[in-house]
Amino acid sequence: MKLSAIASILECEYDFKDIEINGMNALQDAEVNEVSFVANSKYIKDIQTTKAGAVIVPASLVEHIPNNCVALVVEDSYWSMAILSKYFAPPIENEELPGALIGEGSKISSKAEIANGSRIGKNCTILAHVYIGCEAVIGNNTIIYPNVTVYRDCHIGSDCIIHSNTAIGADGFGFATSAQGEHKKIYQNGNVVIGDDVEIGSNVSVDRAVFGSTRINKGVRIDNLVQIGHNCEIGEYSVFVAQSGSAGSTKLGRNVVVGGQSAFAGHLEIAPFSTFAARSGITKNITKSGLTFSGFPLMEHKLWLKLQVKIARLLK
Amino acid sequence: MKLSAIASILECEYDFKDIEINGMNALQDAEVNEVSFVANSKYIKDIQTTKAGAVIVPASLVEHIPNNCVALVVEDSYWSMAILSKYFAPPIENEELPGALIGEGSKISSKAEIANGSRIGKNCTILAHVYIGCEAVIGNNTIIYPNVTVYRDCHIGSDCIIHSNTAIGADGFGFATSAQGEHKKIYQNGNVVIGDDVEIGSNVSVDRAVFGSTRINKGVRIDNLVQIGHNCEIGEYSVFVAQSGSAGSTKLGRNVVVGGQSAFAGHLEIAPFSTFAARSGITKNITKSGLTFSGFPLMEHKLWLKLQVKIARLLK
Amino acid sequence: MKLSAIASILECEYDFKDIEINGMNALQDAEVNEVSFVANSKYIKDIQTTKAGAVIVPASLVEHIPNNCVALVVEDSYWSMAILSKYFAPPIENEELPGALIGEGSKISSKAEIANGSRIGKNCTILAHVYIGCEAVIGNNTIIYPNVTVYRDCHIGSDCIIHSNTAIGADGFGFATSAQGEHKKIYQNGNVVIGDDVEIGSNVSVDRAVFGSTRINKGVRIDNLVQIGHNCEIGEYSVFVAQSGSAGSTKLGRNVVVGGQSAFAGHLEIAPFSTFAARSGITKNITKSGLTFSGFPLMEHKLWLKLQVKIARLLK
Repeated sequence: MKLSAIASILECEYDFKDIEINGMNALQDAEVNEVSFVANSKYIKDIQTTKAGAVIVPASLVEHIPNNCVALVVEDSYWSMAILSKYFAPPIENEELPGALIGEGSKISSKAEIANGSRIGKNCTILAHVYIGCEAVIGNNTIIYPNVTVYRDCHIGSDCIIHSNTAIGADGFGFATSAQGEHKKIYQNGNVVIGDDVEIGSNVSVDRAVFGSTRINKGVRIDNLVQIGHNCEIGEYSVFVAQSGSAGSTKLGRNVVVGGQSAFAGHLEIAPFSTFAARSGITKNITKSGLTFSGFPLMEHKLWLKLQVKIARLLK
Repeated sequence: MKLSAIASILECEYDFKDIEINGMNALQDAEVNEVSFVANSKYIKDIQTTKAGAVIVPASLVEHIPNNCVALVVEDSYWSMAILSKYFAPPIENEELPGALIGEGSKISSKAEIANGSRIGKNCTILAHVYIGCEAVIGNNTIIYPNVTVYRDCHIGSDCIIHSNTAIGADGFGFATSAQGEHKKIYQNGNVVIGDDVEIGSNVSVDRAVFGSTRINKGVRIDNLVQIGHNCEIGEYSVFVAQSGSAGSTKLGRNVVVGGQSAFAGHLEIAPFSTFAARSGITKNITKSGLTFSGFPLMEHKLWLKLQVKIARLLK
Repeated sequence: MKLSAIASILECEYDFKDIEINGMNALQDAEVNEVSFVANSKYIKDIQTTKAGAVIVPASLVEHIPNNCVALVVEDSYWSMAILSKYFAPPIENEELPGALIGEGSKISSKAEIANGSRIGKNCTILAHVYIGCEAVIGNNTIIYPNVTVYRDCHIGSDCIIHSNTAIGADGFGFATSAQGEHKKIYQNGNVVIGDDVEIGSNVSVDRAVFGSTRINKGVRIDNLVQIGHNCEIGEYSVFVAQSGSAGSTKLGRNVVVGGQSAFAGHLEIAPFSTFAARSGITKNITKSGLTFSGFPLMEHKLWLKLQVKIARLLK
């Protein structure tokens, strides 16, 4: 898509040399043929160092745009980004893609739907009513139980087990909201990448990234009814117990243990080997590894135990 | 169904002029050809003004029944209502209905099941393993991802997106319990009505109403793993973050924001533009709009922040 | 499988009379032709009384193994048990089994998958995109809504209703973890047994047992998005409100009421007729029946109400 066409969609002034743009991305990840956006002065540093070919930007931040980058000046850059995201959304299915490639020894139920353009490895078992979207990739020896949905473009490693009624790669929860309170969808054009030896329970939701990938790394264990928001990264061998979850863009180190019904706010960084007791509510970064936490607000587990004794004393 | 037949099912005395009854409804919504019920003296005012043709009532409340309404006097009116509800439950599927009507430009997977008597608008995309129940109605341009179930009689508007493994219109959680602790199902003969431009995430449960409709109004955004109980009404442009929920019959104004893992008790009224932080527990009506709340018990967010400081001081 | 082969898999010394072993089981449930394991000195009593033909045991506990039982001495008995569990896992499907038996009057959608070796009773309704695994057994008059998965070997009683997108019998959340933090799956070779007159909502996860059965007894009512861990037993007529759950091996008496978003820790015993308010966190046994509880930490509901008043006073 031409940058001039984008300027026209966003109703921006157009007085720059035209280039081809083939995607949208975050400031720090964007390449020269991508367009990015900024809505908040918190990210001034990221504007200054971006490699994006163009940035959607409000007038108040335009001075920070680097010389080699086109500023697309709009009133509400988040709303404009939402409008533009639709133009980069690929079709849900694409009949022109070649038929799915199925590896040797894989058993695919005749009642599964394997979309064109997908690739399944060797010795997989794909049961009835599974949906594998177009251009999805599944490794070897992976078992996918009935009624699982793997959305387009998502990758699942080898030796994985995905239990029934789980959704891998549904859209992340992203929208812009106008001053009048109306919402505009931000198309989630990223994907989900799941490493090898991962087991995911039933009725789990792992959302696709808005840009880039939501990542579930090697050896992770996810129990039932867990929510993994868009653009999270779950470190190797981490464990999510049932009904826990994470908002978007939170990154966990390896071997983090997340107790039942616990939840992370978005955009956090969690040190490896952290343990969270059941129903923890984590709203801040954890920088020191190997500790155990509880409660909401969160505190070290031993402090939480003490605090409960103090609170119980209020009754006396 | 004749009122005399109903009296016979409920083992009531029968000494009134017979009429045709074609449904059950709440006291305040019932019409002359419907039967209602009352189990609790809280609702005396609603008895006095009901237009129902007949009311199932315990002897202790029979004096409040208006003159033009037949009293069906029973021992346990809630239990009797549960018994009767089964007789008004339509069949799950009905092969005698005409084949589904599919609008121009809609793509329906051959692996979807579109029951007889349903109607799908124009330019919809219905993916594999979707189930659309009989007499369900879908608007135009709506996308329904794999493994979604839309139960019979439910309506979904135009320009909606329903993500995988979501259930629209399963039975609300309703039953009567005997003195011995046994449960009797209350058949949920209402439906779900979803407005235009609604997006619902994966693994969401929106229950059908016992009578009337559960309503998700225009522009609402629902994240993954959310529970919407029977007979709720979710106001325009409201937002439910992942793993939140509402018990039955709660009504939200427009642009209410419900944080992750928050929940509403049943039968509440929530003012528009209310915001609830993650894990709020809302058990009372909110009458003033535009405020932000936290905690369980719920309080204004700024108070909750203060309180956490006070609680932390107990440790000193 | 020969015990000598098991010793070889686990790299144990082999100096005993060989016997045929046909399964794994818990110490207290194992029969003479089964192998069990122990990892913890808490269970010394259970070792001494086990009827197991062999027990996987660390050197530190080998002295407690009874005379008629073979000790399979390993370094990490939990890890070894995980390794062995895979050898007793039956195939997911088995085409050599006879075709499913369908009782008179049952309506099975042509888009449902009913695996070989399963048995469906009379007058059942099985809708599209349902999966009934091999050797599963369904009673009479049971309704299974679209996109439900019933895994192999699971039993569902008569007069049950299972709502859409629910998973019955997915693997319990079981694995051993090495000192390096790697996980090894413990194959869940038990099943789920659901009694008569049970209703289960949409998007529910009921996990199969590691050994033996997860049991949902007669008359239970389970709302949407509920988690029932492996080896739980839910007493007759108990009620789980939406988004509540239980970790593994917890046993509830009859008519326990579990409020929305409440959860039980594992391995608890809960007295009959207990009631838990919404969002209760239950981490200890409840021995006295008929009481109402709230909070996390849990306390009697009337105490919890008092405590909230005291806590609110901190703000003054």
